[in-house]
Amino acid sequence: MSDGFARFTDRSVVAMRVNGELKDLATTLSDDDVVEPVTIDSADGLGILRHSAAHVLAQAVQRINPEAKLGIGPPVTDGFYYDFDVAEPFTLDDFKPLQKEMDRIIRQGQRFVRRVVTEDEARAELADEPFKLELIGLKGGSDAGDAGESVEVGGAELTIYDNVDPKSGETVWKDLCRGPHLPSTRMIGNGFALMRVAAAYWRGSEKNPQLQRIYGTAWPTKDELRAYQARLEEAAKRDHRKLGRELDLFSFPEEIGSGLAVFHPRGGIIRNEIENYMRERLIANDYELVNTPHITKGHLFETSQHLNWYKEGMFPAMHLDAEYDADGELTRQGQDYYLKPMNCPMHNLIYRARGRSYRELPLRLAEFGTVYRYEKSGTLSGLTRVRGLTQDDAHIYVAPDQVKEELARQLEFVLETLRGYGLNDFYLELSTKDPEKFVGTDEMWEEATETLRQVAVDSGLELVPDPGGAAFYGPKISVQARDAIGRTWQLSTVQLDFNQPELFELEYAAADGSRQQPVMIHRALLGSIERFFAILLEHYAGAFPLWLAPEQVVAIPVADEYAPYLEDVVARLRTAGVRASVDRSDDRMQKKIRTHTTGKVPLQLIAGEQDVAGGSVSFRFLDGTQLNGVPIDEAIERIGRAISDKELILTAWAE
Amino acid sequence: MSDGFARFTDRSVVAMRVNGELKDLATTLSDDDVVEPVTIDSADGLGILRHSAAHVLAQAVQRINPEAKLGIGPPVTDGFYYDFDVAEPFTLDDFKPLQKEMDRIIRQGQRFVRRVVTEDEARAELADEPFKLELIGLKGGSDAGDAGESVEVGGAELTIYDNVDPKSGETVWKDLCRGPHLPSTRMIGNGFALMRVAAAYWRGSEKNPQLQRIYGTAWPTKDELRAYQARLEEAAKRDHRKLGRELDLFSFPEEIGSGLAVFHPRGGIIRNEIENYMRERLIANDYELVNTPHITKGHLFETSQHLNWYKEGMFPAMHLDAEYDADGELTRQGQDYYLKPMNCPMHNLIYRARGRSYRELPLRLAEFGTVYRYEKSGTLSGLTRVRGLTQDDAHIYVAPDQVKEELARQLEFVLETLRGYGLNDFYLELSTKDPEKFVGTDEMWEEATETLRQVAVDSGLELVPDPGGAAFYGPKISVQARDAIGRTWQLSTVQLDFNQPELFELEYAAADGSRQQPVMIHRALLGSIERFFAILLEHYAGAFPLWLAPEQVVAIPVADEYAPYLEDVVARLRTAGVRASVDRSDDRMQKKIRTHTTGKVPLQLIAGEQDVAGGSVSFRFLDGTQLNGVPIDEAIERIGRAISDKELILTAWAE
Repeated sequence: MSDGFARFTDRSVVAMRVNGELKDLATTLSDDDVVEPVTIDSADGLGILRHSAAHVLAQAVQRINPEAKLGIGPPVTDGFYYDFDVAEPFTLDDFKPLQKEMDRIIRQGQRFVRRVVTEDEARAELADEPFKLELIGLKGGSDAGDAGESVEVGGAELTIYDNVDPKSGETVWKDLCRGPHLPSTRMIGNGFALMRVAAAYWRGSEKNPQLQRIYGTAWPTKDELRAYQARLEEAAKRDHRKLGRELDLFSFPEEIGSGLAVFHPRGGIIRNEIENYMRERLIANDYELVNTPHITKGHLFETSQHLNWYKEGMFPAMHLDAEYDADGELTRQGQDYYLKPMNCPMHNLIYRARGRSYRELPLRLAEFGTVYRYEKSGTLSGLTRVRGLTQDDAHIYVAPDQVKEELARQLEFVLETLRGYGLNDFYLELSTKDPEKFVGTDEMWEEATETLRQVAVDSGLELVPDPGGAAFYGPKISVQARDAIGRTWQLSTVQLDFNQPELFELEYAAADGSRQQPVMIHRALLGSIERFFAILLEHYAGAFPLWLAPEQVVAIPVADEYAPYLEDVVARLRTAGVRASVDRSDDRMQKKIRTHTTGKVPLQLIAGEQDVAGGSVSFRFLDGTQLNGVPIDEAIERIGRAISDKELILTAWAE
Repeated sequence: MSDGFARFTDRSVVAMRVNGELKDLATTLSDDDVVEPVTIDSADGLGILRHSAAHVLAQAVQRINPEAKLGIGPPVTDGFYYDFDVAEPFTLDDFKPLQKEMDRIIRQGQRFVRRVVTEDEARAELADEPFKLELIGLKGGSDAGDAGESVEVGGAELTIYDNVDPKSGETVWKDLCRGPHLPSTRMIGNGFALMRVAAAYWRGSEKNPQLQRIYGTAWPTKDELRAYQARLEEAAKRDHRKLGRELDLFSFPEEIGSGLAVFHPRGGIIRNEIENYMRERLIANDYELVNTPHITKGHLFETSQHLNWYKEGMFPAMHLDAEYDADGELTRQGQDYYLKPMNCPMHNLIYRARGRSYRELPLRLAEFGTVYRYEKSGTLSGLTRVRGLTQDDAHIYVAPDQVKEELARQLEFVLETLRGYGLNDFYLELSTKDPEKFVGTDEMWEEATETLRQVAVDSGLELVPDPGGAAFYGPKISVQARDAIGRTWQLSTVQLDFNQPELFELEYAAADGSRQQPVMIHRALLGSIERFFAILLEHYAGAFPLWLAPEQVVAIPVADEYAPYLEDVVARLRTAGVRASVDRSDDRMQKKIRTHTTGKVPLQLIAGEQDVAGGSVSFRFLDGTQLNGVPIDEAIERIGRAISDKELILTAWAE
């Protein structure tokens, strides 16, 4: 490397880390620099690929419409976007010519060339780009900030990336940008696609002008692009908002407001089954079910410091109980009441409602606590991001020497319970101290983190570190579950809290009579019932296992005359607590089978002449397989067992 | 009756109804008047007795303290009160001299003499009584208004009642009053007592001066007074607020606010059992469990008209989602959100979330819906009058021709369910149209009322009319339950609603394809879970039946060495889902038995040498009875059965 340039034999290397910082391959190196290659299929490499694709998109837009003014264009998860100020919003019809233009730019093999400029130079060169000028004013002028907000970097170099025609050596396009970028547009290849358009405020603020955003995706190969598109398609089919509508499970009535779901009868059954199973598990595992109100005087959230740290996420106050005399003079001070965004402070009040002894610990308080959080209406999404959510919230108070055993117990409890819902592909994440923001001593954190780590390792699951990811009050293990199409969801969290026991002056009498402070563990298993409902719905693509299905069994007579026979079978099933019915509509049998298959009813019972003669029924499963001539008693017993064992049955039982 | 005076031979007659109106016995009659006697033990008679006792109290107060100024003094349930403006608040020490003075007035046999006066005369005679003067100004100057508010009666005669010494014929005291009264103070007898003192604002408004109120009770005989006092004592022992504290069931933390309960672990178990049983019953009876948020845009409650009629009872609005530009100009209109005081409008939204067919009716939507109502802090009382309450709320949508069958079904469902909780002494109340305030046609009301009446009569229960007691939107049956000490509580209500289906434009497609409006039935069974919890707690005086008891079984070893034996028994019980534990504290056996008897644990299992040798246990019941040498298997089976059968066991099983 004596010429100051890095050379990598691996053609998939698109950039490098120099002393830990991402740099263009063309960066001049010193002899003592530590250099690591960045390949296109790494997380960093994909980000660079997508960032360069965003520049190519912007160049294509300005080639077609020279009046378009540039906003910013960062990479995002699985893709990129670029914002433009244009007279007419983009439509999907613009995509074909744009992609063609991008292809041309890519094939041209333009080089990305980094150039440090002064503010004055930048202003002169980008005089036609008002938004870029604004970024220059903010210093740091990056287009890689997230979600439209430019990141201010005090004293950073200002850089422009030129796109240079390799033949003429001329700069054909440029952008204010921190980089790095691919060496050449050619490396983008054909694994990219434009996805959708959206409106977005400049720098994320409603007070700024609205720009037009084009989203794209980019992958190292066309095959990877296709695989991604297939995943999206599969996810779209499973989209819980779509399935929720189709299967009549829930809705968000305009009359009630954004992010506030109502569960319809069929969704109510699923929700109730989710809760029942959880309640059973809680009781069997020595939890105490408590119940607290949804509102409280603000003072409680001052004590817990939520009103300091979390006020933006809370609904506005309701002022109560002020009294005035005839002259309008205040005679009694009122109080601000708030909807609760968290349950913990109320559980702390139950803990300290009376003196506690070490004999009572661990004390595990659990509640399905509905909380309300003021999320901006733009960020709301189906059941996964709502304003009203029911946490399956538990707070466990332990003596310090019980922490490890209790954590291990909780982790086991959490995983076993999740398996009951049909999820069984997990890994763990260990969120540790943010050195800038924490309460308590370093020793405390080290010990607690080490305990969590041991418990996590003992579980035998993959453990991913999340350095600095802990809340200020204690380290956390979170359980990440992979669903049926490989997406991961953060579900359960088990989190230590050194802070609230202090703030609420929680105590217990130790064996020696001294007063000690308990450690608090926050434990949410499903997270929120609404979000978990959505995850299960997408995981199962609406084809719930028998125990969760709103309609478990539909009986279909081959002809009308066999309906009474099936009515008897269904009556017996209903007595056994099975959600069963006979389809006595006027439709023909084949139509009924199609209807209930589309409706994702896990089991259809069919009966014709032979079944009636033999005292049996035929089972039809969601995949079309059948099991014929099952004696009625056996059928009822088998269905009951499938429900109590929480079996997932989409195909014929192999017995 | 030609002399114009009524004569009754029954000495217990204290007043009469003349053409339906209550009058003094001394009232002059015309020949065509319809006269009915009012005896002292009737509801009217008791009211008159207590009203006269209130006058005697007021006279006694002014004899002892001539500076005391009179407020009002009406009869109330089981007694009376009188308000006074005095320099020093009364204390219980004042009661003895006051009762003595009242005794003197009663023995004196003063006559109550009614006298019609003009406003000017009244003003002159009551010049020293500023509050009475104010009442004269309001016209109608009654002291029989309820809860401190004088009733305005336009154009009524103004009357003063004189208390006349029968010997001297002199008026010794007088009061502005509408009457009627007993003929003589002597009829008050010795069945009265002063009860308590309280402060109360003049005419119920915080803006007015505070007066001092003395409450008393009065009964026809001393025996009846004693029985009443015994009932009060029993009720005080059972007071759910006291038991809730003693048994550690719930509390009202100051930090959260008035009327907002938290349920502690032991109360949480009871609440959960109450809800579980109800859920089971709902599902078995074809209800659909839905789920709705606790807040909504105000618009929903405009549609339902709650914001017109019920705003005072609602929490104040939270204003959300307004957006402003850099200059502070509103760029997006915000919305008022409210805590819901009722669930019905949200259930209506679920009903109309999609088209409905007659095949789906009756559609029974049920929810444990927590609602918030802004009750004045002074009116709150334990769990029976709260600000946050969870209704077991159901709304049933039926076709008009299904109304009767569904009402009968609901009434049966309600009574059967209440019996499951151990309540079984009921009567019904039929609330019918208030002619001043109703929607719909007379025919509609007549038909619906007749249907309700038939259903009520068919139930075979006593039926009490409540004329004019219906809400404006439809007639109602309510179930009144008598508890263990004979008090009645209004529990379930089944109410027709002609109004909301109209307001929400609810429809279904009838068999002929036409669009029809369903009838809506509001059905609350427990009323609110909080209030029902309080009623059960008082009904059982804390000694819950096995299935509801927070601790079902406590095992007590005769000596430490038998503890492991009982641990095994308890482990088997816990596996069977029984809430059982071994008391391994250092206390001696007798002390343990006392502790758990006080703690109202329904079953104690005791084991000593003989039991261990014989593989048995001894049962000890709450009344101290025992059942010895029960083989372990049998014990476990018997306990399981007592739980699933919801048996009430306070004494030894007779088997």
